[in-house]
Amino acid sequence: MTASAPLELRIDLGERSYPILIGPALLDDAGLVARHVPARDVLVVTNETVGPLYLERLEAGLAGKRARSIALPDGEQHKNLAVLGRVFDALVEARLNRDACVIALGGGVVGDMAGFAAACYQRGVDFVQVPTTLLAQVDSAVGGKTGVNHPGGKNLIGAFHQPRAVLADLGTLRTLPPRELRAGLAEVIKYGLVADIEFLAWIEAHVERLLALDMDALAFAVRRSCAIKARIVASDEREQGVRALLNLGHTFGHAIENASGYGEWLHGEAVAMGMLQAADMSQRLGHLSAADVMRVRDLLRRAGLPLAAPPIGAARALELMGMDKKVLAGRIRLVLLRKLGDGIVTGDYPADALQQTLRTHFEGAPA
Amino acid sequence: MTASAPLELRIDLGERSYPILIGPALLDDAGLVARHVPARDVLVVTNETVGPLYLERLEAGLAGKRARSIALPDGEQHKNLAVLGRVFDALVEARLNRDACVIALGGGVVGDMAGFAAACYQRGVDFVQVPTTLLAQVDSAVGGKTGVNHPGGKNLIGAFHQPRAVLADLGTLRTLPPRELRAGLAEVIKYGLVADIEFLAWIEAHVERLLALDMDALAFAVRRSCAIKARIVASDEREQGVRALLNLGHTFGHAIENASGYGEWLHGEAVAMGMLQAADMSQRLGHLSAADVMRVRDLLRRAGLPLAAPPIGAARALELMGMDKKVLAGRIRLVLLRKLGDGIVTGDYPADALQQTLRTHFEGAPA
Repeated sequence: MTASAPLELRIDLGERSYPILIGPALLDDAGLVARHVPARDVLVVTNETVGPLYLERLEAGLAGKRARSIALPDGEQHKNLAVLGRVFDALVEARLNRDACVIALGGGVVGDMAGFAAACYQRGVDFVQVPTTLLAQVDSAVGGKTGVNHPGGKNLIGAFHQPRAVLADLGTLRTLPPRELRAGLAEVIKYGLVADIEFLAWIEAHVERLLALDMDALAFAVRRSCAIKARIVASDEREQGVRALLNLGHTFGHAIENASGYGEWLHGEAVAMGMLQAADMSQRLGHLSAADVMRVRDLLRRAGLPLAAPPIGAARALELMGMDKKVLAGRIRLVLLRKLGDGIVTGDYPADALQQTLRTHFEGAPA
Repeated sequence: MTASAPLELRIDLGERSYPILIGPALLDDAGLVARHVPARDVLVVTNETVGPLYLERLEAGLAGKRARSIALPDGEQHKNLAVLGRVFDALVEARLNRDACVIALGGGVVGDMAGFAAACYQRGVDFVQVPTTLLAQVDSAVGGKTGVNHPGGKNLIGAFHQPRAVLADLGTLRTLPPRELRAGLAEVIKYGLVADIEFLAWIEAHVERLLALDMDALAFAVRRSCAIKARIVASDEREQGVRALLNLGHTFGHAIENASGYGEWLHGEAVAMGMLQAADMSQRLGHLSAADVMRVRDLLRRAGLPLAAPPIGAARALELMGMDKKVLAGRIRLVLLRKLGDGIVTGDYPADALQQTLRTHFEGAPA
């Protein structure tokens, strides 16, 4: 592909199907933005960091519509019911009706909250995702999971609500802090590990170009990631089976995010660490070789992702993974790897293997 | 039917289909309750009025399950995001998972909030409705509309989330305040007016027996009301067309509820008044005769429902019906009657007819 022509993918969900557009300068194409926003009345939900950078350009693409905007505070710690209430207030204040459209301009937090507000307002209005982080472009903006956190856990309150379109402008990644770019790469690597060994090899060959914001490399990585996600979501929209594969590294990662308080570890960083733990455990079960695990570790290292978990101890980690201590370790369902590029969701493993993995990673053992 | 055998209806919504059971003593049949609650972990949501009356009996029917409960404050003014947050807290505190079930034990407010909490918790868990008011048994517990109010309007935040079962124990109506029984009758009358002239005639012949809590009469009225609702919901689950018929009287009624603050007028009372206004306007459009309107008025009077709206003025009423003053009156969609037993949803009427109806009813003219 050339850097100027937007790519288009489609999530196939019957009457809820929608396009994902990927290009280096989508926000500069007013016709394209307007074409994918199916409403005259619009509320743009953004945050205090992204708004000043891109809101004006987005609004220029909405000329002729009645567009308002609201800027939420930036950060995972603001993804809660109280801040969600401010989005509802803005929708009511603008007297928007069922035929309105909410646009999410920002990263995963903005997308999750704007999407959830759209799911609930008047029992559901349209929304469009304009993700401005790599993590949102390859993962959270696609597939219809929306929601907010509860003090008791991440994303405990939410809805499945598919967007009408996802407009991923790769140019917005130029203003993304490098640490967040790396965190987004963790999710890209996830797709290779769990579903696509060829893509994994491609990432290994191009990780430095991705980190250097090479637009062609980014376009390929975002498209391939979205294509994998689109295929999996189309076959299991509400995560009753195979979609759980996309949680590779997430259960281990939750323990890290929970233990350190939201915000210290980025979600993608915790997922990276969790993928390493899933690989470790997959080796203990005889699925991966030591060389396989080393290959995972090397790629995460080259992507600039953390390789050492906080030393919180195995018992606390188990608890934070959502397990009651009385519950047998073997009952929690984990995403593991049968081989590189081939994930499996299973609750059928020896409790010992999990314990050993947790002890190795959470008790200050050498990373 | 005999008063002891529960009746069963079915809402036909593909994989979201569910039964409505109607009987005089369902809560005393532990086997029946347990059979319709598809989970081991249960949270019963009730309120401070209904809980002391029926929670113990319901919990006896849940023996063998892990059941917790939460009692919300009683009243429409508590149907908001803040109180909803307490339901989420209870779900998290009980560490309930995706396979849990929420049971709503109470009237419309409890059902709407418990159902909305179930829709959002972990992006959707099962719930069962155990409605204890006539209004909830014939209307709000059936059909999957859930949600909370916003200071800017009723039910502005919510979800479509179908219950797994509706268990309508008619015996609970014995503890219902008579005023609430009458308000529930307004919705029963609505079904006759909008969809079933035979049922309307039956109500006219049995209204005193209904008010006297005759169990056979109540069973017939609840079953016939639910059957009409089931048919309409099955053909238009998300209210994109014919389901709007069920809002007969509601747009006019909203103006009354809004003007007087939630709680002063009961919802059913405002709907009754709104149905009279809809009949008045239908007469102005030449659909109903003066005798038809008198027939509606007589039935509402016999049901003990209010026949005089608060004198808030036509302009304010129009505004509270959700119309911007700059918007032409003719654009708001109303449910009107083509004839008794035959409703129509339309935005195509002379603005004058609406104005005259509003002036007649909202400016202190004789009722």
